[in-house]
Amino acid sequence: MQIDIISLFPEMFAGPFGQSITKRAIENNLLNVQITNPRQFAYDKHQQVDDAPFGGGNGMVLKPEPFFRAVKHIKDNTEFINRRIVLMCPSGQPFTQAKAKELAGYDQLIFVCGHYEGFDARITDHLVDEAISIGDYVLTGGELPAMVIVDALSRMLPGVLGSAESAPTDSFYAGLLECPQYTRPREYHGFSVPDILLSGDHAKINLWRRREALRVTLYARPDLLEKIELDATDLKLLAEIKAERRGS
Amino acid sequence: MQIDIISLFPEMFAGPFGQSITKRAIENNLLNVQITNPRQFAYDKHQQVDDAPFGGGNGMVLKPEPFFRAVKHIKDNTEFINRRIVLMCPSGQPFTQAKAKELAGYDQLIFVCGHYEGFDARITDHLVDEAISIGDYVLTGGELPAMVIVDALSRMLPGVLGSAESAPTDSFYAGLLECPQYTRPREYHGFSVPDILLSGDHAKINLWRRREALRVTLYARPDLLEKIELDATDLKLLAEIKAERRGS
Repeated sequence: MQIDIISLFPEMFAGPFGQSITKRAIENNLLNVQITNPRQFAYDKHQQVDDAPFGGGNGMVLKPEPFFRAVKHIKDNTEFINRRIVLMCPSGQPFTQAKAKELAGYDQLIFVCGHYEGFDARITDHLVDEAISIGDYVLTGGELPAMVIVDALSRMLPGVLGSAESAPTDSFYAGLLECPQYTRPREYHGFSVPDILLSGDHAKINLWRRREALRVTLYARPDLLEKIELDATDLKLLAEIKAERRGS
Repeated sequence: MQIDIISLFPEMFAGPFGQSITKRAIENNLLNVQITNPRQFAYDKHQQVDDAPFGGGNGMVLKPEPFFRAVKHIKDNTEFINRRIVLMCPSGQPFTQAKAKELAGYDQLIFVCGHYEGFDARITDHLVDEAISIGDYVLTGGELPAMVIVDALSRMLPGVLGSAESAPTDSFYAGLLECPQYTRPREYHGFSVPDILLSGDHAKINLWRRREALRVTLYARPDLLEKIELDATDLKLLAEIKAERRGS
């Protein structure tokens, strides 16, 4: 998979992409990441990438030319058909696990990152295929969001994750949050591992894990329960959990 | 403000924290960031930080000791009273702009990051004050989420942002997404700047900007409109936008 990132701060990516999953995907030739600085596509000798907003107001606005020209440069120098141009933007559609899966299906993704300022609306309206936001909070630029998306979708590329880190049991794959997990020591600071996990009874352990995953989800993110299909066992477990919570 | 980050991958932070807003906040002594590797607090000579889960199953689980001991080390070597220990975790409460504001009020934040694996539940239950998730997607570790949160709250520290980047007009401060912005050139690739922005009539421009902010929010994130108080002008503008959308 080819990832192109258009960013005024290429140095930001070295640490995160030099470690961990993304590093492994790059080393195994499953991912090729290229950073392009739009400043090199500015017209004037000062390489200005922003200018004052029409209509007045504080702040600066990122100019269209450096970004249109950077995308054209990338398109001219790569030959992928199945590609998608994504703007990192707080007004975009929320990033989700489903969106990660969808994006992982493209051969090339071109991420357009801003920094500090807003984009000229012609970039939003005419240059990109879609705008994505990683959450309802304000960040300084699109660089961290692009890293977050690349991390999430790297995990989905075949051959990136080892079996020990296998993706399908992670949170959000099954629609529930993860059940509590325990490892050695059996007791630490007076806090013990639940007896059931030491019982060796795998049917009981699996039922306990499902119940606790339902409990964690009900307590922390009840909205997630409305988005998945629960079977008869789940509904019974949920009823028990709710009864326990009421102290009955 | 003191930020401590407990991470098995300290090298990931150099790029993002060496640039931009966070760099500026650090240089101006408004922020002090310290990364602590829990591996140095592992007991055994192999510095093992994870182990197999009790009850069986794939994957490894992060052991409690290295993380409890890393937090204790940080507490023993810093003297802040008003501090908060935060676990980066997909089961946590969703990170929002309001949460960023709340966290910016502490004198010290200690972020606990996992990597690849789940945490022993005793870390979740007994070591940290709260767990936070930056969105409903699965990432390889808590490092990128910690960077996202530090970026969002750095912007809120007094003296970090210059007037040109002033925070209060950003998306989510006023509850609406940002209106479209334009800068030079007036025409690019056949796409023009709206005439009203060139009119010099600031009352009309402000009304247009409010209408377009409402329109962007209605189209992209109608859920946000339910969370804010709209005045009579807003309601009239929204009615007009909806009528236009129906083509009447």
